[in-house]
Amino acid sequence: MSEATLRDHAIQQLVLANRILAHENVIDGFGHVSVRHPTKPDRFLLSRSRSPEVVTRDDIMEFALDGTLVSDDPRRPYAERFIHGAVYEARSDVMSVSHHHAPAVIPFSLTDIALRPAFHMASVIGAHVPVWDSQPEFGDTNMIVDTLEMGRSLAKTLGNGRTALLRGHGAICAAPDLRAICMVSIFMKDNAELVLNTLPLGQPKYLTGGEIDKAGAMLLGDMPLARAWDYWTARAGFPGI
Amino acid sequence: MSEATLRDHAIQQLVLANRILAHENVIDGFGHVSVRHPTKPDRFLLSRSRSPEVVTRDDIMEFALDGTLVSDDPRRPYAERFIHGAVYEARSDVMSVSHHHAPAVIPFSLTDIALRPAFHMASVIGAHVPVWDSQPEFGDTNMIVDTLEMGRSLAKTLGNGRTALLRGHGAICAAPDLRAICMVSIFMKDNAELVLNTLPLGQPKYLTGGEIDKAGAMLLGDMPLARAWDYWTARAGFPGI
Amino acid sequence: MSEATLRDHAIQQLVLANRILAHENVIDGFGHVSVRHPTKPDRFLLSRSRSPEVVTRDDIMEFALDGTLVSDDPRRPYAERFIHGAVYEARSDVMSVSHHHAPAVIPFSLTDIALRPAFHMASVIGAHVPVWDSQPEFGDTNMIVDTLEMGRSLAKTLGNGRTALLRGHGAICAAPDLRAICMVSIFMKDNAELVLNTLPLGQPKYLTGGEIDKAGAMLLGDMPLARAWDYWTARAGFPGI
Amino acid sequence: MSEATLRDHAIQQLVLANRILAHENVIDGFGHVSVRHPTKPDRFLLSRSRSPEVVTRDDIMEFALDGTLVSDDPRRPYAERFIHGAVYEARSDVMSVSHHHAPAVIPFSLTDIALRPAFHMASVIGAHVPVWDSQPEFGDTNMIVDTLEMGRSLAKTLGNGRTALLRGHGAICAAPDLRAICMVSIFMKDNAELVLNTLPLGQPKYLTGGEIDKAGAMLLGDMPLARAWDYWTARAGFPGI
Repeated sequence: MSEATLRDHAIQQLVLANRILAHENVIDGFGHVSVRHPTKPDRFLLSRSRSPEVVTRDDIMEFALDGTLVSDDPRRPYAERFIHGAVYEARSDVMSVSHHHAPAVIPFSLTDIALRPAFHMASVIGAHVPVWDSQPEFGDTNMIVDTLEMGRSLAKTLGNGRTALLRGHGAICAAPDLRAICMVSIFMKDNAELVLNTLPLGQPKYLTGGEIDKAGAMLLGDMPLARAWDYWTARAGFPGI
Repeated sequence: MSEATLRDHAIQQLVLANRILAHENVIDGFGHVSVRHPTKPDRFLLSRSRSPEVVTRDDIMEFALDGTLVSDDPRRPYAERFIHGAVYEARSDVMSVSHHHAPAVIPFSLTDIALRPAFHMASVIGAHVPVWDSQPEFGDTNMIVDTLEMGRSLAKTLGNGRTALLRGHGAICAAPDLRAICMVSIFMKDNAELVLNTLPLGQPKYLTGGEIDKAGAMLLGDMPLARAWDYWTARAGFPGI
Repeated sequence: MSEATLRDHAIQQLVLANRILAHENVIDGFGHVSVRHPTKPDRFLLSRSRSPEVVTRDDIMEFALDGTLVSDDPRRPYAERFIHGAVYEARSDVMSVSHHHAPAVIPFSLTDIALRPAFHMASVIGAHVPVWDSQPEFGDTNMIVDTLEMGRSLAKTLGNGRTALLRGHGAICAAPDLRAICMVSIFMKDNAELVLNTLPLGQPKYLTGGEIDKAGAMLLGDMPLARAWDYWTARAGFPGI
Repeated sequence: MSEATLRDHAIQQLVLANRILAHENVIDGFGHVSVRHPTKPDRFLLSRSRSPEVVTRDDIMEFALDGTLVSDDPRRPYAERFIHGAVYEARSDVMSVSHHHAPAVIPFSLTDIALRPAFHMASVIGAHVPVWDSQPEFGDTNMIVDTLEMGRSLAKTLGNGRTALLRGHGAICAAPDLRAICMVSIFMKDNAELVLNTLPLGQPKYLTGGEIDKAGAMLLGDMPLARAWDYWTARAGFPGI
């Protein structure tokens, strides 16, 4: 495939990922999902400031890793694009990033109970989900990660993981491709709901470290990702894409 | 724009706000939303007694602040229109008012746990959400705010805030325009759901006063409101309006 | 209106009530709703054994109060039609009866926490919701109220009230007409959800007896019922009926 | 009916069961449902590796009880087909098997609180729902039942029952036909939700053993199954099938 074709394909998949994460109630009006540029690793593709549920191809913009828009497009970008750039900058293995406010995950950013995988599909979120708090480093803010400095601080908390929580705000996910970012984001939400439902019954038996490693590697293989993509695209109204 | 055009535009936006708040499950069959008249500040626009989910342009009526209908329309107005008039009377900064029974907020009117913003989007509800109880002043009633006297008592409890709870009944919201009233009403509900989900895990870390001020000011700016309106109207079946 | 027209109208309204209670998630595949015959008070109208979500005019049958089918229709009636007959027999003021398994109400049949109205709309369920248990009188059964004897036992527990719970099974509601049966059934469910959400926060302040009487009388008036019917029929896909 | 007609009919019903269990939110993208071959009891019919929500007739494959595909179809089968084969092998009375991850059931696999029927419809899940844990026998795995050996271990835990839980994973159900597998799977989920809602209020009064036997036998009779199938197919978009 030519460079232009690869970029076109990435944009199409990115639009689908926007619609999927909106349809599955992971991303509301104020989250976003991006993909690293397929041939220029120092760039990433992300919608203009628009809700993922209504994003189309025309909304996708190209950014440098420091969040600079690579065109003279007059439309407004997301204020929080720095989250994406900072993660791509820090993690060469990451090809896709999401930022969401799935309601079920936020309680784990507000209390001392760690979010840990309790069922097999959630193994993809990783054994440890750190919580980033803007207070110690930045004090009272508007809670938005709208500078490269804040993005880098958050990326540091993410470390080598796949998911992190933002206190009083939401979460970020990082994955090797767009199908995987959907899986990580969706099962992060499902796992949070499961644990919220379980805690009133007692302390849950979480997955072991070995189970997390083995199940996570299996689920991010081609077969489960293809089956899930087939399912999510159909549900979002784009069957067979 | 001419006075008639401004009024027409306000009515169109008001119908959309009705549909949005119904679609987002904030207002059920018995809530309502109003807007102050765009050129006559001593008047407000509100549907006849009809569920917001089915309100159309033809249903909108014009009222004086004391709840008097300004026309000889024979159709029945909402019994609780006094809520709106009393808030507009007391608060010249308020251009839109909603009254809803979002199920998640009512528990905070029934117990001593205060509703406080726990995530950034909820900063718009304000740091303090007072609870109005009809008992001390009015004794056993049918629980409906159907006199100007009760409306004024409720407006007094609201004070300078954006939100207040009604014991065993629901909530009111007050905001500088129709887009903002949707944001305040929707995130009031989302915040209540979040806190209900968090309390069984322990005491949540709420937003600080400084975070509430900064995030609230940012969210009620034009960019977030435009993005949210684009999202809500599309979801309610009126994309691009 | 002629007797035939009155019966036709009752059937049409009964079909709408079936669809409304299914659409509002009060009645699942195994509940039912009936209306007393408009001109023959010793008869009632009820669907053949079919889920309310798919009931049509052709499904409605006519029964005597003892549950006998008043025609040679070969189709199967509900096994639990005796619930309806026994309530009509005991309560001349009741013109409509529903039986449902709304998930939120069943916990109040399984523990010692009484279901009481906690918000104004729920005043219509009445101050006291008794629980009927089939065990003391009938021992181990298939849990179905499939004899007139069991129906009468249940009606006795209902007494002069509007609602009762069946242990490990569901609820019945009794009201003065079809619009009112929808209101009682729907707000019984909403109130149960509200109380389930509130109890983890502490003991709720329930409505007072005076508030229940006044709000209940107001809500079962023509204006609120008309507004609610307009809303429910539109939501169920029959706007303006 | 000829053998081919019987097989065709079984496939059609199996596709409907796939759609029903997806529509009722019992099976997500990664569950499955099968039926024993109607004339060859040592075979079963199951979709290729595809989400039940999008399964069609063309997706159905035929397997031997050891999980071997009985054709040269190049498409990928479910990795967990061994669950189905092992249950059919152990239980000649079982004609249909489902495997699902309904979120409400998983908490009962993570804590010591047993899942027991608390309302009459749930009698079909049986008095005792055992929990299978892969750890003691297989140690750290990817949590997938992807060998005949694991399938047989799980079938042993199921014993003569209708339902079993898999720790940190989901559940299996076994029933005498496709309509019954839908009923068992759906009411297993509904019962789990009910008990989760009830436990914060206190210890629920569960059904007695006698009630479970009597109600379960009644519900798996032709009348309730026909009524439920009529309801589920209509809801899934296939009315009257």
